Order: sequence, then C-alpha cells, then structure tokens
Amino acid sequence: MAPPFQRHIFVCTNRRPDGHPKGDCATKGSEEIRAAFKTELDKRGIKGTMRANAAGCLDTCAFGPSVVVYPEGVWYGGVKLEDVPVIVEEHLIGGRPVERLLMKFAKKEAKPGEAKPADTKPPGTP
Amino acid sequence: MAPPFQRHIFVCTNRRPDGHPKGDCATKGSEEIRAAFKTELDKRGIKGTMRANAAGCLDTCAFGPSVVVYPEGVWYGGVKLEDVPVIVEEHLIGGRPVERLLMKFAKKEAKPGEAKPADTKPPGTP
Repeated sequence: MAPPFQRHIFVCTNRRPDGHPKGDCATKGSEEIRAAFKTELDKRGIKGTMRANAAGCLDTCAFGPSVVVYPEGVWYGGVKLEDVPVIVEEHLIGGRPVERLLMKFAKKEAKPGEAKPADTKPPGTP
Repeated sequence: MAPPFQRHIFVCTNRRPDGHPKGDCATKGSEEIRAAFKTELDKRGIKGTMRANAAGCLDTCAFGPSVVVYPEGVWYGGVKLEDVPVIVEEHLIGGRPVERLLMKFAKKEAKPGEAKPADTKPPGTP
C-alpha cells in the first residue's frame, strides 16, 4: 500500500475518560469499525488504493462514530458495524455516498474578519 | 469549529515501541508539529474553517514526520516545526503547496484484477 490514495477513510478512534460529557467514538465501537473497513478493503483487493486510517477527534462527537472520506469530504455519522460493507460497496467502489448515513450539519461560511483561505494570494504576500 | 472543513490537515502522531525498524512520526516530533498547526490556525483566526487533526500511521513512515492536507490530497514529508507557519501561510491560506516539502512518491495505478473504484457501478450491482 502506498499513497496517494484514491480514497482515504478516516475513522475517529478517540477515547475519553469514562463519564466525560462529550462521550467519544471509541466507546461507541469505532475501533471495530475501523478494523472492519480494513478487512473489507482487503477482501475486495483494493487496499492498494484506499486506506482506512485511525484519526483523533474529528470534532463531531455528537454524531459519532464519525467517519470522513477524502478527497470528496463525505462525512458519515452514527456508523454501525453492519454499515461498513455498504459504504465500501456503494460509495468507495460504486462512487455513490450512502445518503442515509450522511452527517447532518450546516455548511459553514467564514466569519467576517476571518482570513479567507482560497486560491488567491492574501494581501501583503509576495 | 465545525465540519465540513475548508482544509483538513492530518498529522501522523503514531508512536511505535523503541527500536522498531520502521521508526515512527511521534519520535520525530510530530506531536509538536500538530500542536504548532493548531496554534498557527488559531493565531490567524481560521480554526473555524480548518482543522489540524491527529492521525494514526499514514503509511509513509520513511518520509515522516508525515502530513496530508485534504481535500487536495497534498502530502508533506520530513516536516519540521519551522515549516509549519510556511505551510499555513503559503498553502492553507495562499493556496500554493510548498514544493520543497512535498513527499516524493510515484503515482500508483490499480493492479490488474483489483477492483477499479470510480464513479461507475461495478458489474453485478443493481
């Protein structure tokens, strides 16, 4: 396996101390979910072009277990073990994100005064 | 901060037992590099639209400390602490990847017989 990867799957495997108000994805089974992604990619012979990676907190604790797939930036929430082969088959191989598992959050706009990251040069740079 | 992020930076913070032949990014200072990304994003007021994330092994141990920026899929290797503000300024804000830090690896093609992940349906799916 070697990058760059055609699709790079990040599974939050963050674990917080017991009783933390935010909870965490590991307690909700995300380590098993990550392992299942690895197994499914291997089974289908595509682990050479895709990677199921562990990630720290993806800042979507309320929606966990959280998974994000790049480069397309598709976010999945509340992922269960049995959803993994479906995501692999329909999205990673088939190219169709699994609608029912998409994380629901509003698109953010940069706040006024925030730097506007883009393809343009910020003022003052050469 | 909330996703989706305009740019999502993953820093490998994997740590292996001492003396492991592959080495690891944490031993090469990647935890400090990740912290520096967070500080720089905060300082520039863009931590609302970008996130510096910890990641498990990115499978580029020989090139570490390893960083990948999505959605563009730009890979940096051998990143030093002093490179962080440069990457933030030139790439994350300015949109110009920092050429001298790009990881050098060959583009991979899918092997014959491997599933070909794409936007097309694989044979046999409905």
